[in-house]
Amino acid sequence: MFTPRDKNIDGLIEQLSALQQGLHGNDFLLTWDKTEADLKAVMLAAEILQALHWQGKSARSFNHGLAISIFRDNSTRTRFSFASAASLLGLTLSELDEVKSQVAHGETVRETANMISFLTEVIGIRDDMYPGEGHTYMLEVAQAVEQGHKEGLLPSRPTLVNLQCDLDHPTQSLADLLKLKDYFGGLENLKGKKIAMSWAYSPSYGKPLSVPQGVINLMSRFGMEVVLAHPEGYDLLPETLLTAQDFAKKSGGSFRLTHDMKDAFDNADVVYPKSWAPMAVMQKRTELLKAGDKQGLVDLEKHCLAENAKHTNWECTEEMMRLTKDGNALYEHCLPADITDVSCKQGEVSKSVFERYRYHTYQEAGFKPYVIAAMIFMSKIAHPAQKLKSFL
Amino acid sequence: MFTPRDKNIDGLIEQLSALQQGLHGNDFLLTWDKTEADLKAVMLAAEILQALHWQGKSARSFNHGLAISIFRDNSTRTRFSFASAASLLGLTLSELDEVKSQVAHGETVRETANMISFLTEVIGIRDDMYPGEGHTYMLEVAQAVEQGHKEGLLPSRPTLVNLQCDLDHPTQSLADLLKLKDYFGGLENLKGKKIAMSWAYSPSYGKPLSVPQGVINLMSRFGMEVVLAHPEGYDLLPETLLTAQDFAKKSGGSFRLTHDMKDAFDNADVVYPKSWAPMAVMQKRTELLKAGDKQGLVDLEKHCLAENAKHTNWECTEEMMRLTKDGNALYEHCLPADITDVSCKQGEVSKSVFERYRYHTYQEAGFKPYVIAAMIFMSKIAHPAQKLKSFL
Amino acid sequence: MFTPRDKNIDGLIEQLSALQQGLHGNDFLLTWDKTEADLKAVMLAAEILQALHWQGKSARSFNHGLAISIFRDNSTRTRFSFASAASLLGLTLSELDEVKSQVAHGETVRETANMISFLTEVIGIRDDMYPGEGHTYMLEVAQAVEQGHKEGLLPSRPTLVNLQCDLDHPTQSLADLLKLKDYFGGLENLKGKKIAMSWAYSPSYGKPLSVPQGVINLMSRFGMEVVLAHPEGYDLLPETLLTAQDFAKKSGGSFRLTHDMKDAFDNADVVYPKSWAPMAVMQKRTELLKAGDKQGLVDLEKHCLAENAKHTNWECTEEMMRLTKDGNALYEHCLPADITDVSCKQGEVSKSVFERYRYHTYQEAGFKPYVIAAMIFMSKIAHPAQKLKSFL
Repeated sequence: MFTPRDKNIDGLIEQLSALQQGLHGNDFLLTWDKTEADLKAVMLAAEILQALHWQGKSARSFNHGLAISIFRDNSTRTRFSFASAASLLGLTLSELDEVKSQVAHGETVRETANMISFLTEVIGIRDDMYPGEGHTYMLEVAQAVEQGHKEGLLPSRPTLVNLQCDLDHPTQSLADLLKLKDYFGGLENLKGKKIAMSWAYSPSYGKPLSVPQGVINLMSRFGMEVVLAHPEGYDLLPETLLTAQDFAKKSGGSFRLTHDMKDAFDNADVVYPKSWAPMAVMQKRTELLKAGDKQGLVDLEKHCLAENAKHTNWECTEEMMRLTKDGNALYEHCLPADITDVSCKQGEVSKSVFERYRYHTYQEAGFKPYVIAAMIFMSKIAHPAQKLKSFL
Repeated sequence: MFTPRDKNIDGLIEQLSALQQGLHGNDFLLTWDKTEADLKAVMLAAEILQALHWQGKSARSFNHGLAISIFRDNSTRTRFSFASAASLLGLTLSELDEVKSQVAHGETVRETANMISFLTEVIGIRDDMYPGEGHTYMLEVAQAVEQGHKEGLLPSRPTLVNLQCDLDHPTQSLADLLKLKDYFGGLENLKGKKIAMSWAYSPSYGKPLSVPQGVINLMSRFGMEVVLAHPEGYDLLPETLLTAQDFAKKSGGSFRLTHDMKDAFDNADVVYPKSWAPMAVMQKRTELLKAGDKQGLVDLEKHCLAENAKHTNWECTEEMMRLTKDGNALYEHCLPADITDVSCKQGEVSKSVFERYRYHTYQEAGFKPYVIAAMIFMSKIAHPAQKLKSFL
Repeated sequence: MFTPRDKNIDGLIEQLSALQQGLHGNDFLLTWDKTEADLKAVMLAAEILQALHWQGKSARSFNHGLAISIFRDNSTRTRFSFASAASLLGLTLSELDEVKSQVAHGETVRETANMISFLTEVIGIRDDMYPGEGHTYMLEVAQAVEQGHKEGLLPSRPTLVNLQCDLDHPTQSLADLLKLKDYFGGLENLKGKKIAMSWAYSPSYGKPLSVPQGVINLMSRFGMEVVLAHPEGYDLLPETLLTAQDFAKKSGGSFRLTHDMKDAFDNADVVYPKSWAPMAVMQKRTELLKAGDKQGLVDLEKHCLAENAKHTNWECTEEMMRLTKDGNALYEHCLPADITDVSCKQGEVSKSVFERYRYHTYQEAGFKPYVIAAMIFMSKIAHPAQKLKSFL
């Protein structure tokens, strides 16, 4: 179970040392651009940083330098996770608020990216609202600071950390995976375990696709039997299904799509029921937003909520949970969940199911600050194992 | 007088060591929940931290960790006092801005409180606008992180510091008391001194009750003769008068209510003239705000300002000051004051009185950052005297 | 060229030691209030701090304390430069947001300045919108904290740093000058070099005058041939031309005004083409803003844009650049520039010229965080050379 206070930090550092990973000097944008060793290394570093904190040891790695966050969508938990990671490592948090700044005044991304980076170690970005845009924007920023560094304008190359884009939400999915590692006693125990990444009803619309896309592409790499479930029409980005398929094949796991929530829950070891908007709706919404078509947006929302309302039975109820392995699957969620009779009249999960797993979802969320810190640490520190040992 | 640079820090630490206080691991929400030893300990720690800073010594107590502030009402001096306290102790300041965050999106307080607390040492909250709400909200947050810590989700229990609620404003009243301690040369010299906590006219309405409630419940514990004065109808929360009565009895001081400002000022050693809204008005206002009744709010404001205008003679003028002990009482105020002919046409205090005591009110305010730092320090540090000695 | 990593820090510190400068304990508001030795010292300190950072050495100078910024106008690069400087020196950044705070609620500047300064080392202010106001406001704040410190209310006197006012923009102009020092291989090599500080067309209006005023009054002190160029009617504050005249005379350089951009560019070593609003327009705008005359503001903007549009030929094109010394003058800009076909249809500079000098303008901007850090450092640290040596 969850005992970062008792963890053998030396042992974890040894495991980290043994990995042939290539995180140093690289951004963390998509889990599927990383090797399994990279992913394991981030998770190990996260566990070590967490254990150091719980055991009262400092992991201060910088004397100065900025950790800049750019939030193009609201956030509480990721915002504070990023702030916590910065504080842990000794960086000064600085938010680029596009209202206060001159970003909107015609500056190019390249220029702004360099202008804020003269003493910057990491830039964390959330940009998840528009399909086809978030990841592209991050690449643009990355290219800009890469060039600035190569040209000798920036003393160090700020690392980019994806705090959620249109494609992936790696700080979330790795926290989800760390929870599974902890819960089942090791990554190796995930082989053959079934996870149901399922759409669930919510009385809202426009939730990003990055969580389900991230989950199916990460869990499939560790030998899990991944089942994606959603009503017809709630498609994810098609290529993310293809990569998940590939990953499953390579890892000895499996990946399949179903339009039946019960099929997904049947004998599952883990369930992850969560609402999202259909890809097509997100694309339509982006067009309307760009065109400034307010009536169109109102109409689209009305249409979508009506569409959603046909699937109110996609709820993670006690009855649904009874279908899972021993009626006892682990319930995961990125939070906040739409809880029936708590945050809404009818939502993604029934109150009693959520309550029973509240501890687990909170613990899952608790990995996120350390995952972010690990991404920064592993990218910026040349000899991570040695540095981590120095904290003991 | 005020010479933090000459203070004997060793001597103050000895005094602190001698106190049987119980601050460790506990929140600071209301002074009346604390023992006299607790209050003395916070004041001593504040004086020590101030003296350390003035004498150029670091009091850095943390290597990392967040100090989160939640301001549900505007603030300049308390905001910066909290930031200063965080900086002094080595914590990273992080504001929970409920506009930027998802707090308003149906999240429960419990969840948010835990989600922001994985690396958090202290949460400071200002929530003073609605009678019956601020303190309740703080208790809810406290309970949430208490549970999170007990369940093993949070490595340490974030301390809550009340930065002003509907009941009390302890960081203010303890700064006020530290000013009295300094001015009269020790807490023991306050015995028998008369303080007039008096309503005063202001051309605004809706000012919270926490300052007068806090003052009458704190000064009454140190043997002072506390007189509360206000026009009829400007009642404080009734139970706060009962506790003040009790405290006075125990400490050998006294507490009484008068509706005559002159009666209160007569032979007073200290005067604290300050506007507030009647309890009933604040409650009515809360109802109207919740109902979204804009016309009702306009009408209420009009009614209240008209009511206030009947009491423009409740002003701390030179004439009023002449009634005090030797015409020379100390004037206290939490700032900003409504100063006649400066910040308004007619207000709480005349310009010449305010100017004569400007130095004293600024110095009073200057204790606040250290009071906040002391509350954090005494709650989080297991062996405070030992730690303070290590800074020398 | 630009090699902070190879700089001989010891040598720079020796140069700094040799200067008879008087920066300690003083604000940095206007370059023309400083001696040449002061200016050289700030630049040397900036170079040293930059070299320390590039060479991986910490310049942490404070254990705690606030660095407060007050932005009364939008900013990205200066905001992040100030944040970077604070981080470099170990100060906690805290922004005074006048919307969140009670500043607007009738508090006097004096009171607020003291209330936020109990643990504050530096206050950086941008207030550039209203002629006659920004500098005055800074003096008011400076006087307030000066008095607070003298009266024994503040343990240290916060240093004020002008982050752009109505008169000067010293952190920018010193970054510009550092770029020239670096580019031409030393300040002494600037003697006799011609710089064209020229107005340029922009499809916006209301840009502050502080950059051209700052540039003509700084470059004229180092023996440069300074030519100010603008269309008739786009006058700067008259007294700033007189001081530039004086400085030029003393330094053996020259200063003159022309209304012909080609005249200014002819054989120039450096060109600085940048838009600004005529003084008279800024004054009119201030009156209208104060009067809340929205229609007046709309009319003024329309009038000004029409006026500007008569001068679209004031653009830094390739053709214009061919007029400069060997067709190869250095192009400077404070950024962001209005780039034709990039940020607007027609602007201050053509795309190809901007692109060719992009590296140089970025590098110019890169000095700013260190200039700000140097201003703070030199004002607050009693023995700067000794302290800088301790970082090696």
